[in-house]
Amino acid sequence: MGAEPVRMMERNEAGIARVVARLGERFADRCQVGASIREQHGNTTTWVANFPPDAVVFAESTEEVSEIVKACAEEAVPVIPFGTGTSLEGQVNALHGGICIDVSRMDQVLAVHAEDLDCVVQPGVTRKKLNEYLRDQGLFFPIDPGADASLGGMASTRASGTNAVRYGTMKDVVLSLEAVMPDGRIVRTGTRAKKSSAGYDLTRLLIGAEGTLGIITELTLRLNGIPEAISGGICPFETLEGACNAVIATIQCGIPVARIELLDTLQVKASNAYSNLSLEERPTLLLEFHGSESGVREQAEMFGEIAAEFGGGDFQWAREQEERTRLWQARHDAYWACVAMRPGAKAVATDVCVPISRLAECITESRRDLDASGLTAPIVGHVGDGNFHVSLLIDMNDGAEVEAASGFMARLVERAIAMDGTCTGEHGVGHGKAKYLRAELGDAVDVMRTIKRAIDPQDIMNPGKILPEGLSR
Amino acid sequence: MGAEPVRMMERNEAGIARVVARLGERFADRCQVGASIREQHGNTTTWVANFPPDAVVFAESTEEVSEIVKACAEEAVPVIPFGTGTSLEGQVNALHGGICIDVSRMDQVLAVHAEDLDCVVQPGVTRKKLNEYLRDQGLFFPIDPGADASLGGMASTRASGTNAVRYGTMKDVVLSLEAVMPDGRIVRTGTRAKKSSAGYDLTRLLIGAEGTLGIITELTLRLNGIPEAISGGICPFETLEGACNAVIATIQCGIPVARIELLDTLQVKASNAYSNLSLEERPTLLLEFHGSESGVREQAEMFGEIAAEFGGGDFQWAREQEERTRLWQARHDAYWACVAMRPGAKAVATDVCVPISRLAECITESRRDLDASGLTAPIVGHVGDGNFHVSLLIDMNDGAEVEAASGFMARLVERAIAMDGTCTGEHGVGHGKAKYLRAELGDAVDVMRTIKRAIDPQDIMNPGKILPEGLSR
Repeated sequence: MGAEPVRMMERNEAGIARVVARLGERFADRCQVGASIREQHGNTTTWVANFPPDAVVFAESTEEVSEIVKACAEEAVPVIPFGTGTSLEGQVNALHGGICIDVSRMDQVLAVHAEDLDCVVQPGVTRKKLNEYLRDQGLFFPIDPGADASLGGMASTRASGTNAVRYGTMKDVVLSLEAVMPDGRIVRTGTRAKKSSAGYDLTRLLIGAEGTLGIITELTLRLNGIPEAISGGICPFETLEGACNAVIATIQCGIPVARIELLDTLQVKASNAYSNLSLEERPTLLLEFHGSESGVREQAEMFGEIAAEFGGGDFQWAREQEERTRLWQARHDAYWACVAMRPGAKAVATDVCVPISRLAECITESRRDLDASGLTAPIVGHVGDGNFHVSLLIDMNDGAEVEAASGFMARLVERAIAMDGTCTGEHGVGHGKAKYLRAELGDAVDVMRTIKRAIDPQDIMNPGKILPEGLSR
Repeated sequence: MGAEPVRMMERNEAGIARVVARLGERFADRCQVGASIREQHGNTTTWVANFPPDAVVFAESTEEVSEIVKACAEEAVPVIPFGTGTSLEGQVNALHGGICIDVSRMDQVLAVHAEDLDCVVQPGVTRKKLNEYLRDQGLFFPIDPGADASLGGMASTRASGTNAVRYGTMKDVVLSLEAVMPDGRIVRTGTRAKKSSAGYDLTRLLIGAEGTLGIITELTLRLNGIPEAISGGICPFETLEGACNAVIATIQCGIPVARIELLDTLQVKASNAYSNLSLEERPTLLLEFHGSESGVREQAEMFGEIAAEFGGGDFQWAREQEERTRLWQARHDAYWACVAMRPGAKAVATDVCVPISRLAECITESRRDLDASGLTAPIVGHVGDGNFHVSLLIDMNDGAEVEAASGFMARLVERAIAMDGTCTGEHGVGHGKAKYLRAELGDAVDVMRTIKRAIDPQDIMNPGKILPEGLSR
């Protein structure tokens, strides 16, 4: 598919064997070598082929992560961090074998500072668990990529999701990190101050580095107060362009919309079937407003006027929490609704992001391309940011279809880059998109490689990810 | 003062002479070697001793910056970028001599994409010039550090200022950069997409790097629509604690205040005298609200209730633009008001930032410390972020006073770090604060050095800044 066949690097068999033996002795049944657990840690929701690690160690503290990394560093054995395995571009694949460090047991909320609107968490805490923990204190953590991902993993892929248009992405909400570097050293990249000009931004360097520079072992996160009022609703449009133009106008007017999501007609059909809804089968925007009672009302009225101007139909309000939850659950289940559309097919989720002025053009061209290629693929998008997802439903046994999908994905990325956009808005590069990085960023890729080589000279931290030709090539 | 005496590195005299001659030939009168122009480029508003460069070259394009850097790289001669020279920690000092690249003539707004709320500018564009350019289109650029700094310089020091509590800092508003790297290569760190997960965040790595990793030659910036309504006012408090606690409550309630600034009693006195105001001489908050007409009214009412709870006095409204401008001009002139308080004294502006729960404690302890040390120093602060400034008015000929100020500054930083804060919220490290970096960030400083060494192995990019012991020590 989209990813090139992996050029198998010489596996460091002897080193791997020694490290696996040593970790087995040290961690006993927290070091697992069974085939199914290794396979599950090589690949879960991604479409990229599975490359299992040689062992999975369940770490329970920063010191243990450091100990494992030191053991691997001594033998030049790869180390791959694992949170919940919900990444989409093969980020947790052990392309050259090695040790997977599963941090899911590092799942404690270490501190909540309500006055400062921040908290300190271990990397295995998931976003839902954090929000359950915070609810009683009137606080919430806003980043919501759909999946109940771990916060360490979300930072590592620079995740975002439906709330990003209002609350930003992981790069905006992390105040500081603790990380284990490739030689096992434990470093802390910042303080709890809301802002700082003290030195290089190592926090942001580790966010989005997908574990290739270090393993995140603790996160200090900004929080928000739960808004006094939340309202939302759903609005069908005559055309995709109309829906996109309504989004542009909404953002331009400065309406502080919390969520503004697009479902194309095919996705609405899929969601109707899967989530038992009866939405009009047209391009549809799903919205949420946060604020005071009157603020939320005002935002909704302003949006209503804009929608009417761009061919929006009846705006159906979801004032009750229950109704909103049902709608947003349907949005979050979009992926599963796609999967259900074509039983037996593999759902290949890919994402790009473009300036919003180009969004309608990029989506409509992509839809034409899909139709011309004979591919079934609903489109959904975090359109307030210009970010959208295409979920290709592929029969992996049909070579021609696989070929067509592969061609489409390459054209989608080319199209986004030509519109001054990016090959990935939030899924990350992993193994699947490494080949597109140079087209987007040119010689900046060499600067990335310089940094990687300096920080991880043995190339043991999640090797083969992000950088297109590996470290030494 | 606060900075240690500079250990003079061996100046590369032969290399410098060759580069100066070569650039003189190439750039004619755009390459200046006169003493006063060199001195002015070594140091302007900072208190750190002046180290002038050997020549100042006025670059007019990215290609010229690249050409100059290449010439310097060939001879291992230092290169220091210069915007408007308003940095406060000696960032533009040529500690080891070398070439200053003045980018103030690179002052074009290259593009405004109103639909996407972004623009592309050269690094010499100042924030005021950009805002004048944008006004007709209903857009504005929100970062306002007071000084009319260049945008390249603001990015390089990770500047922020009065609006940061609502709109973020430079790290939040830069979408991508073009930069000349230490070997003269020109790289672009991102696209115009609002978000991306494509590779390491080189944009954020260059922001705050103070020209030690590369020279910023172009910036793509997020913009905001000018709010429908702006209102503001001023509110005196019985105590400093009361003012700080009102700020905490305001932030916690989620009031999206655009500006919330503290002036302590001494600063109010200074500003009354300098800006011809008649404010009550008490700890005072200066506020601004942005939003819709009703939203702004609601925010102000909510704040009024909070202020009353914490000993706030009469809230004086400044509804007219003119009155607001006068108040904010007084805030921006705070530095000059301090200077005027004690003619002949040098104003030494320093800043720290702490979690806001510790703000009242940090400011009152610092005030006690100042009083006990017999120092005259008003305090102002971007208190919504926990960031405050102490402006020490020092007779530089009085050794005991200089000593006392130096001791105070060290204790201020220790105090902030002990409260889980940072040695600088927005001024940057430069030369003046390099010695505090390890106390704040520990071994993370070594990771910074690893990056610096890899990207700039000859240590020619603004050497002696940020990293406490230089590159090779």
